[in-house]
Amino acid sequence: MTHYNLALLGFGNVGQSLAQLLLDKRDELRDKYQLTYSITAIGTRSHGMVINTDGLDIEAAIRLAVNGSDLSTLSTKCRPKNVFDLIRQCKADVLFENTPVNYQSGEPAISHLTFALEQDMHIITANKGPVVHAYSFLAKMAETKGRKFYFESTVMDGAPIFSLFREALPAAQLFAFHGILNSTTNMILTRMENGESFDQAVTYCQKIGIAETDPSGDIDGWDAAVKVAALVTVLMGIHLNPADIQRKGIREITIDQIQNARLEGKRWKLICSAEKKNGRVMAKVWPKLIGPESPMYAAAGTTSMVVFETDILAGLSIVEQDPGPQTTAYGLLADFLNAVKP
Amino acid sequence: MTHYNLALLGFGNVGQSLAQLLLDKRDELRDKYQLTYSITAIGTRSHGMVINTDGLDIEAAIRLAVNGSDLSTLSTKCRPKNVFDLIRQCKADVLFENTPVNYQSGEPAISHLTFALEQDMHIITANKGPVVHAYSFLAKMAETKGRKFYFESTVMDGAPIFSLFREALPAAQLFAFHGILNSTTNMILTRMENGESFDQAVTYCQKIGIAETDPSGDIDGWDAAVKVAALVTVLMGIHLNPADIQRKGIREITIDQIQNARLEGKRWKLICSAEKKNGRVMAKVWPKLIGPESPMYAAAGTTSMVVFETDILAGLSIVEQDPGPQTTAYGLLADFLNAVKP
Repeated sequence: MTHYNLALLGFGNVGQSLAQLLLDKRDELRDKYQLTYSITAIGTRSHGMVINTDGLDIEAAIRLAVNGSDLSTLSTKCRPKNVFDLIRQCKADVLFENTPVNYQSGEPAISHLTFALEQDMHIITANKGPVVHAYSFLAKMAETKGRKFYFESTVMDGAPIFSLFREALPAAQLFAFHGILNSTTNMILTRMENGESFDQAVTYCQKIGIAETDPSGDIDGWDAAVKVAALVTVLMGIHLNPADIQRKGIREITIDQIQNARLEGKRWKLICSAEKKNGRVMAKVWPKLIGPESPMYAAAGTTSMVVFETDILAGLSIVEQDPGPQTTAYGLLADFLNAVKP
Repeated sequence: MTHYNLALLGFGNVGQSLAQLLLDKRDELRDKYQLTYSITAIGTRSHGMVINTDGLDIEAAIRLAVNGSDLSTLSTKCRPKNVFDLIRQCKADVLFENTPVNYQSGEPAISHLTFALEQDMHIITANKGPVVHAYSFLAKMAETKGRKFYFESTVMDGAPIFSLFREALPAAQLFAFHGILNSTTNMILTRMENGESFDQAVTYCQKIGIAETDPSGDIDGWDAAVKVAALVTVLMGIHLNPADIQRKGIREITIDQIQNARLEGKRWKLICSAEKKNGRVMAKVWPKLIGPESPMYAAAGTTSMVVFETDILAGLSIVEQDPGPQTTAYGLLADFLNAVKP
């Protein structure tokens, strides 16, 4: 039986779902994987920071977070001055970094993850920023340290994409992929097919928590481009800047276009694609008319999917239906189990 | 750098493709995985057996097989009396078993694999028989021996299914799945949609090598049922006999039914499904009308797919387009790399 101390940066929907999943799977992981764990620290931007190296009361932490209360009341043993101090003092074996993405620089997440690696922790994140802006640096540093840098939940939530190539597809060379990687725009397009206006569809997505107050990151294809950049950088081994991706969002697609497509039995989708040729990558995020002969036609609502073309498997698709915060949390848990497996 | 001796039982399409893939990936595997390999033995039913513990000439072996010649001319160093003698003498670290499936008993493959485990080899097979009839026995024996028993290529060719759950989806509980697992019937139905008769479609499948001279194993849903049984047995942990699966093939589907479905924008598919409830499994292979809202609608020709429902991911689908012998060979190679990975 091995015990792991876990630290959580960010305790929003995903962080709370991870904490709940760690509670739910406690017995299963003890029995099947011979491992136990405590959460020894939680750091948030607006709801305080807390450390207890003997293990925090996870249920109480979730209750406080749901109520919007300050987490620091959970323990008075130790008061971290800042996030670096929290990382230094929390005695964690694994740091989960789940703060909001900074598309421009990936900071401060990159600095936090780097510092955690320096303290010999495995680092696991659902934050695309560090993957797009510092994958190579963090992966090399993790290797040097004998630790793992995993980030399954950054693309398609908890569906196995990075671990698929890392663990299940050895010696497969990826040369192209295409798919639907942004759930929010896909949901908006599906709602518009069913008669809602663009604004109504956006409002709905905000209500169910899949669109931000400012939804432009999704609508203008920026989130999709960042995911394409992450896939290209990690799986094709070529660093790609999201800004270098040809990108057009769904803002200009009209109700008329969508209804005309419907009459033809087709659907507008925001399609991501990338192709590697002669050591260079061409990548694109662009709206496209899709017919029922394509597997992407049936991907409605928040469903996302990707079709991989490799030297070995002509077309291998992964489709994730109806993801939620628990799905993202599962990606983090799977990363944890893969990071510490013997 | 680690060197592995490999033995191959069965040297038909799949065995030859594996040999070719081992040639093609030789440099890549040496550079990226620090491993080298020789094929030290090949055993076939009708084209002889050959052993050379210094390594056979793989290109020559493929040439002989393509020409239908006897393989024993490849080396005169050692004459195995039978398959057991070949396994005993070949000094292999890994046995690849790719002989035709025996649906009724899984023999003689089970005995050969057992004997190879006794000689401390990893055992890898594309043969469904041993998985359906002896999974529990072989898996336990492999564990005791500190060896691996892998069989990725038994379901959906080289697409990662078993390795997905084993390596990339830790702590996910599978409670249901459905999909299209038999390529031949799917191709027949696609050809009938396009105007061919049942007999014409079967003849086409025989011509391209995906249907046997007696195609009833595919057409009557038997192959699909065996795959369902393999998935249930391995991934749900409940032994299921293929004969206990409710099964109906595609023999009774008429051209009229298919064309009527087409007019409604639907397609007939042979759908596999299984659901675990209260420790029991209900499983079925049955023709079903599928509309374009289902991801299975777009799965045409030899494409196969499966949708997994787990406690964590509501719906995770794997789709494999256009598989061939090389795809199956890749599943075997991936098993090899996963079996020997440090």
